[in-house]
Amino acid sequence: MAVIEKPSAGGVAGLTISIIGLGLMGGSFAKALKRGTGARVLACGRNAMFLESVRASGVIDLGFTSPAEAVADADLTVVCLYPDDTVKFIRDNMPHFKPGSVVTDIAGVKRRIVDGLLPHMREDVEFVPGHPMAGRERAGYQYSVETLFDRCNYILTPHERNTVSGLELMKRFAGALGAVSIVRAEPDEHDEMIAYTSQLPHALAVAYVLVAAERDPLPFSAGSYRDVSRVAAINARMWAELFVENADALAAEMQKLSAGMARIATLIRAGDRDALAEMLSEAAALKEERL
Amino acid sequence: MAVIEKPSAGGVAGLTISIIGLGLMGGSFAKALKRGTGARVLACGRNAMFLESVRASGVIDLGFTSPAEAVADADLTVVCLYPDDTVKFIRDNMPHFKPGSVVTDIAGVKRRIVDGLLPHMREDVEFVPGHPMAGRERAGYQYSVETLFDRCNYILTPHERNTVSGLELMKRFAGALGAVSIVRAEPDEHDEMIAYTSQLPHALAVAYVLVAAERDPLPFSAGSYRDVSRVAAINARMWAELFVENADALAAEMQKLSAGMARIATLIRAGDRDALAEMLSEAAALKEERL
Repeated sequence: MAVIEKPSAGGVAGLTISIIGLGLMGGSFAKALKRGTGARVLACGRNAMFLESVRASGVIDLGFTSPAEAVADADLTVVCLYPDDTVKFIRDNMPHFKPGSVVTDIAGVKRRIVDGLLPHMREDVEFVPGHPMAGRERAGYQYSVETLFDRCNYILTPHERNTVSGLELMKRFAGALGAVSIVRAEPDEHDEMIAYTSQLPHALAVAYVLVAAERDPLPFSAGSYRDVSRVAAINARMWAELFVENADALAAEMQKLSAGMARIATLIRAGDRDALAEMLSEAAALKEERL
Repeated sequence: MAVIEKPSAGGVAGLTISIIGLGLMGGSFAKALKRGTGARVLACGRNAMFLESVRASGVIDLGFTSPAEAVADADLTVVCLYPDDTVKFIRDNMPHFKPGSVVTDIAGVKRRIVDGLLPHMREDVEFVPGHPMAGRERAGYQYSVETLFDRCNYILTPHERNTVSGLELMKRFAGALGAVSIVRAEPDEHDEMIAYTSQLPHALAVAYVLVAAERDPLPFSAGSYRDVSRVAAINARMWAELFVENADALAAEMQKLSAGMARIATLIRAGDRDALAEMLSEAAALKEERL
């Protein structure tokens, strides 16, 4: 079962933190860290001119196109890539990480990441798997915001090789970003819960907007349409990867949802208002408990 | 096909408008009208002390527990009751409406309302079926807000007995409330589109939260969870009525959604990232067009 803790207040002043990949997430990390945390922020990307413009804007202290250089001096490396690329990056750059440093990731699946990395980690480099519950229905640095992590849940899925000091560094990092709580969970619990809380809403949003491909719903729309369709503006390649890498858990949640929808449809077709109202009341009570 | 028009700018100053039922919607109408529209606002409710407190707070000019008295002097009567109660109220009070006045409703189904009322309308009282696309996942006067209709779509489903002046009054009313557009549609088109834009998201939200009845998703939740579950805090009796009264259209939309979910599940289980990414891209493109 997940354990909920407060982030640590120690801060990250004086630490060198390297952000790998300056997209929506990486850019938001850099911007959040530049809100006076006192960390030195490095970044690794492919485009030197882009990195230089980000440096000139004050969001990072230094940019690198060479991964080896980007991680060599980092106390904490935050890999902000897609899941498969995350595993590949950390494996490929294993010789270059600073001895005694911590490496973390942000991938929305954790079992595959942990299994893919643990056998390859150096003894003197600690991998702490992370997943900050924050995002936007957008991709790319231009959408990154310094407030992205404000009051978020920051999930960590520690393993047998994690240390107190490695976890403590991540709790300080999350606190410095503005997270409201640290959620410690097993990788499998994470993947099962995320299938429900994050992947299922994204799959639903996609299926939902495609239902009306031939009709314009906007003149008839209000808040509930906007809400359920919001994340349909999806980063297709990344979410396809996440869905497939968590196939069993997500398919199980989709199956449960379909069964619930079928129950509602049966009551509707039968015209059974009382049973339907009872089911709706049950949902309303659950939601009221969990606002 | 729906016709989109601008609301009229003429305003409702000097008109007497009677609100039947001071719940979330009725209360919001009254509050919106009291933002300087110059209308005289009456209200009908069951509880005299409550009506007096609302009057004392300046939201209405006069409250009535007698429907006959509440409508006798009204140029426009706005019935803010559940669908079946709406039909019953208007039929029961047919002798009492002011000659030459307009009566409107806010029910989320329109075919049943129109068919239930047209044969019973007096020649000198005009019924204009309405459905403002505005709401909150709450019930009751205490949640009503003066801004509820700001920038909403105000749907009208006119019929063969409507007049230019009756429709014009409703367009002025919608404009005074702050609506951004008037959507004119056939009752059947309304019911089909609303099944998709409003009822389906509510049914989904209910099925969605019930999937996790035994688990606490909050530590693992972020924006997409909040969005898809928001309207699960549902007014159970009203939505059970709406679902059943629009059973065919809603069941058809649910069926289409389930088919879409099944397609996604098949691609996920097959591990077909490319086909999945293509489907997700299609949804993203649709959503981008319709922000």
